[in-house]
Amino acid sequence: MKILLDGNGGDNAPKSVVEGAVLATEKIDHQLIIIGKEDEIKKELKELGYEGNKIQVVHASEKIENEDNPSKAFRVKKDSSIVKGLNMIKAGEADLFISAGNTGALMVSGIFILGRIPGIDRPAIGSVYPILGKDLPALLIDAGANAECKPNNLLEFAMMGNIYMEKVLGINSPKIGLVNMGTEENKGTPVIKETFKLLEKSDMNFVGNVEAREVPKGACDVIVCDGFVGNVILKLTEGLASNISALLKKKFTEGVRAKVGAVFLLNKMKEIRQEFDYSEYGGAPILGVQGPIVKMHGSSTGKAVSNAIVMAVPFIEGKVVETIKSSVSELERIEYDISE
Amino acid sequence: MKILLDGNGGDNAPKSVVEGAVLATEKIDHQLIIIGKEDEIKKELKELGYEGNKIQVVHASEKIENEDNPSKAFRVKKDSSIVKGLNMIKAGEADLFISAGNTGALMVSGIFILGRIPGIDRPAIGSVYPILGKDLPALLIDAGANAECKPNNLLEFAMMGNIYMEKVLGINSPKIGLVNMGTEENKGTPVIKETFKLLEKSDMNFVGNVEAREVPKGACDVIVCDGFVGNVILKLTEGLASNISALLKKKFTEGVRAKVGAVFLLNKMKEIRQEFDYSEYGGAPILGVQGPIVKMHGSSTGKAVSNAIVMAVPFIEGKVVETIKSSVSELERIEYDISE
Repeated sequence: MKILLDGNGGDNAPKSVVEGAVLATEKIDHQLIIIGKEDEIKKELKELGYEGNKIQVVHASEKIENEDNPSKAFRVKKDSSIVKGLNMIKAGEADLFISAGNTGALMVSGIFILGRIPGIDRPAIGSVYPILGKDLPALLIDAGANAECKPNNLLEFAMMGNIYMEKVLGINSPKIGLVNMGTEENKGTPVIKETFKLLEKSDMNFVGNVEAREVPKGACDVIVCDGFVGNVILKLTEGLASNISALLKKKFTEGVRAKVGAVFLLNKMKEIRQEFDYSEYGGAPILGVQGPIVKMHGSSTGKAVSNAIVMAVPFIEGKVVETIKSSVSELERIEYDISE
Repeated sequence: MKILLDGNGGDNAPKSVVEGAVLATEKIDHQLIIIGKEDEIKKELKELGYEGNKIQVVHASEKIENEDNPSKAFRVKKDSSIVKGLNMIKAGEADLFISAGNTGALMVSGIFILGRIPGIDRPAIGSVYPILGKDLPALLIDAGANAECKPNNLLEFAMMGNIYMEKVLGINSPKIGLVNMGTEENKGTPVIKETFKLLEKSDMNFVGNVEAREVPKGACDVIVCDGFVGNVILKLTEGLASNISALLKKKFTEGVRAKVGAVFLLNKMKEIRQEFDYSEYGGAPILGVQGPIVKMHGSSTGKAVSNAIVMAVPFIEGKVVETIKSSVSELERIEYDISE
């Protein structure tokens, strides 16, 4: 098994990527390849004193910046780590691509280089969503790739999320929930109502409509929504968590009494922050393309990169892409049933 | 000025409604009317020892339950507090209606009895949204009445929210933000992109697209979105706040050390909970109908009802409904400019 890392992608590249790779060699026994600016990567490897043979370096001279237009960057930057890296996946020279680079470019390049899985209309980004007080996160799909969706797209997202959670996180028969503005079947937009019917016809463990209030409480393992709503859920969660944390900090340092109390609670505060740590579950899978791609947060640390590498193993071994491919006929069966 | 209260609506009716009315008589000098089951209301008034002449009771024998279908309830329950109350508003027997009852029934009855404001295609519900660390909340509009919206609907929401925040909360030139999945003008669905153009042409203080991450930080005073997204924002905020609060409670009572720390922080924890208290700003205005209606949370306490009554005064005195009416021509101007 060969895991390919984008050495040019992310705010802290290549430093955090190299750090993550070195950390991962202590945890898993697979070949890692870092694609990017060779001299910079080798310098980082040297600084970390890594002398093993588990990390290989492939040169890619260009970097797709976050500001780059995805479609244009894909056409123009042929020697970028993303374009070159995905061509390596296509050629079978590596089994999975991990990048903290430009999400749009990763998506566009994934679709154009690897191709969509036949029968999947719209590939999507799944994002792990931490559930406070639970060991395993949920998967939110779509996390922002498709602003507007048709019922069949949402059905595809549910199916792909279902497979990912089963194969990669080991959740047996994941609970599939459809984000809606009420739990009743007749709630929501026409698209949501139609999606409800499709999901009901499926063999998945569909638990019905889920209100946003229940999402952070772990009402479902796969949170199905369009990319607009997915983006709102992810970003609002981020914003609120950081806001509440800032408020706690402010309140707990006002006056001597509060400061004394806060000292006693230092460890607990640290535990609370860890509950919000997305990075433990290894980034966001791009699902629906013919090859495994994992998108990481732009500001990923070495530890986060290392976690993504570890989680890549079940993504490959669980044959997520192949399982999605072979499940497409099930989607067609559902759509046929509904049109009957 | 006469403020009309729904004595049959809400989980704690008529108790909390009567409590709120009595509390409010100490704060404002206007006539209050409670419409509902006369004997029950009078019993509560007696229990509270109220003997003043500021609270009048009007009998309405029926209650629209939360489970009732709004359109059907409106047609069938003619002697319900909602239908009878809104007819009193129409007849000029009271100036504003406050209810903690069935939201859909309130909306449908408002539209059928009072009528839409000419030129307003879709009335909407505005919900106050607390901004941590700030004295004034934002207004989220639409909070759930219209799952799907056209650009002109969103423009109407912005205009109505703008007027409400100016007249009722006294915010000069409120910042109008459009919820989107990125700040760039070309982000989002076709509806959102078109709305962006309309808002840019308006005379309002449009601050552009606002990501959900920035909403709880107070990036804008009027949060414009369709009812689906509005529902997601409100419910997710509620769910996360309650979840984080439960986690804090759990963590802060684990072990002696944490318990000691928590004792020192009791007051601070109380202050933090208050920051999340929506009820201080008096419920959610239904905007776009020809009369002022305020929807309260079903579980509103006496204090919350009293706050809603106090906030009703600037809603009436600020002539919010009349100002919306006279601003409709501005909407037409914007739409004409765009179609040019």
